[in-house]
Amino acid sequence: MMASVAPLGARAVSVRKRGGPVSEDLVAVEAPLEIRIGDRPLVITMRTPGQDGELTAGYLFGEGIIHTRDQIASVRDEPHAAISDPTELAAGRVGGGDRVVVELRDVEDGVVERARRGHAATAACGVCGKESLEDLDQALPSVVAVDCPLALLADLPERMRPHQPLFHATGGIHAAGLFTLDGALQHVREDIGRHNAVDKVIGRAILDGAASLTDRILVVSGRAGFELVQKALKAAIPVMVSVGAASSLAVDMATAAGMTLYSFVGPDRGNLHV
Amino acid sequence: MMASVAPLGARAVSVRKRGGPVSEDLVAVEAPLEIRIGDRPLVITMRTPGQDGELTAGYLFGEGIIHTRDQIASVRDEPHAAISDPTELAAGRVGGGDRVVVELRDVEDGVVERARRGHAATAACGVCGKESLEDLDQALPSVVAVDCPLALLADLPERMRPHQPLFHATGGIHAAGLFTLDGALQHVREDIGRHNAVDKVIGRAILDGAASLTDRILVVSGRAGFELVQKALKAAIPVMVSVGAASSLAVDMATAAGMTLYSFVGPDRGNLHV
Repeated sequence: MMASVAPLGARAVSVRKRGGPVSEDLVAVEAPLEIRIGDRPLVITMRTPGQDGELTAGYLFGEGIIHTRDQIASVRDEPHAAISDPTELAAGRVGGGDRVVVELRDVEDGVVERARRGHAATAACGVCGKESLEDLDQALPSVVAVDCPLALLADLPERMRPHQPLFHATGGIHAAGLFTLDGALQHVREDIGRHNAVDKVIGRAILDGAASLTDRILVVSGRAGFELVQKALKAAIPVMVSVGAASSLAVDMATAAGMTLYSFVGPDRGNLHV
Repeated sequence: MMASVAPLGARAVSVRKRGGPVSEDLVAVEAPLEIRIGDRPLVITMRTPGQDGELTAGYLFGEGIIHTRDQIASVRDEPHAAISDPTELAAGRVGGGDRVVVELRDVEDGVVERARRGHAATAACGVCGKESLEDLDQALPSVVAVDCPLALLADLPERMRPHQPLFHATGGIHAAGLFTLDGALQHVREDIGRHNAVDKVIGRAILDGAASLTDRILVVSGRAGFELVQKALKAAIPVMVSVGAASSLAVDMATAAGMTLYSFVGPDRGNLHV
């Protein structure tokens, strides 16, 4: 059987739909990426391949390691590198995967080391084991609140949908989009991990030269979890729209920071958190 | 305004629905939990409170730290403890949260330390930075394949739904259910993190005395990601059903292990991965 031509980020697999004959179906690709700073591993993440540079820039920005594009001196891809983190090796874990090697400049002493140590007890995905709410209040910039008509915000998921080719192909992948405050679409990125989709789209803006996103709206295709609100606030994004429901911690953070959070947005629903 | 009485795991927040008057809405609670073994932190995870003992048992089992209930000598809750992981403190992260303190017995030398080291480079949530696929193939038991009629499997998400009270209350929380091979519901657990929902439901079975789940079906309300297939395989679960789509890595793992994976299951759809 000839393999279908799958878009980047999707892959054909054999299925029997409802038990019928064997056919092909597209699924979203989930594969490991190791991000290194210089010769030392920073983190390994499961992501959908395709925009590793953006993902890396957004991740470094979200973790507070870089603040501007200029702090990235170089980025090198090493596809299918052997992952060689010593703790991985020690645990008997050796495997292949893609790798991005970043060289930084003008980064404050200790920032990278603190990020590494932070990962030691916490998590790469931004959810598990991250800081407490109290701490987040201190660490994040406050946003300058803006007024956007709810009718505009309610419309943004629809405007994003045509730009989610992997979702249309696979039915199972998250998207994040950046819009201007009057609703013009800037970028949409897709990933099997919703935090990665947000990292990618913010990373794209950082690579384009942005230092903050005070005049942008972030739209996410899934739920508004705390880690996504955190990433948005790190970039000083004042408005966030989610198709899925918000979590308690997401609501607490957004309202404390003065962010407009419009969650659970659909044709006949939408919760403005006040 | 009087606060609504929210079920455990949900919380009332103020919203303006579609910009209307201020009212109350329930959201799923997302809050940190520190799991300690003895006096040392193992991991911090964001979870929905309510079944921390089950979550802990399932997590320890899924990480290969324990294999049976008897290895848990005691479990102690410390609600609202100050989280005090040294790496957190070093990074300037100090906050309140709940804590579970577990005492283990008959655990092989080095297992806990390896798990701790593993977390140093990887992640609490089971996704980011976990082992490579090649390694997973080695580390997991193979399953004894079973035959289940697809019509039965297709029906299980419907049978699970009445047992998802937090989903009905909030619209935004994952569920995982264990069923017998002939479709009788055993347990359903909900959590803001899908990996936690799976840990809870497997943890419940472990606490009930199970050492493996070779005669159970795992049903998940969301997508079939690699980390969920991994957790199921760790318990030797032979059949998994997901309402959401599967990822490439989930398909690869499931088919390599001989697991029946029926994904994207709905009234008129369902992909049997072959």
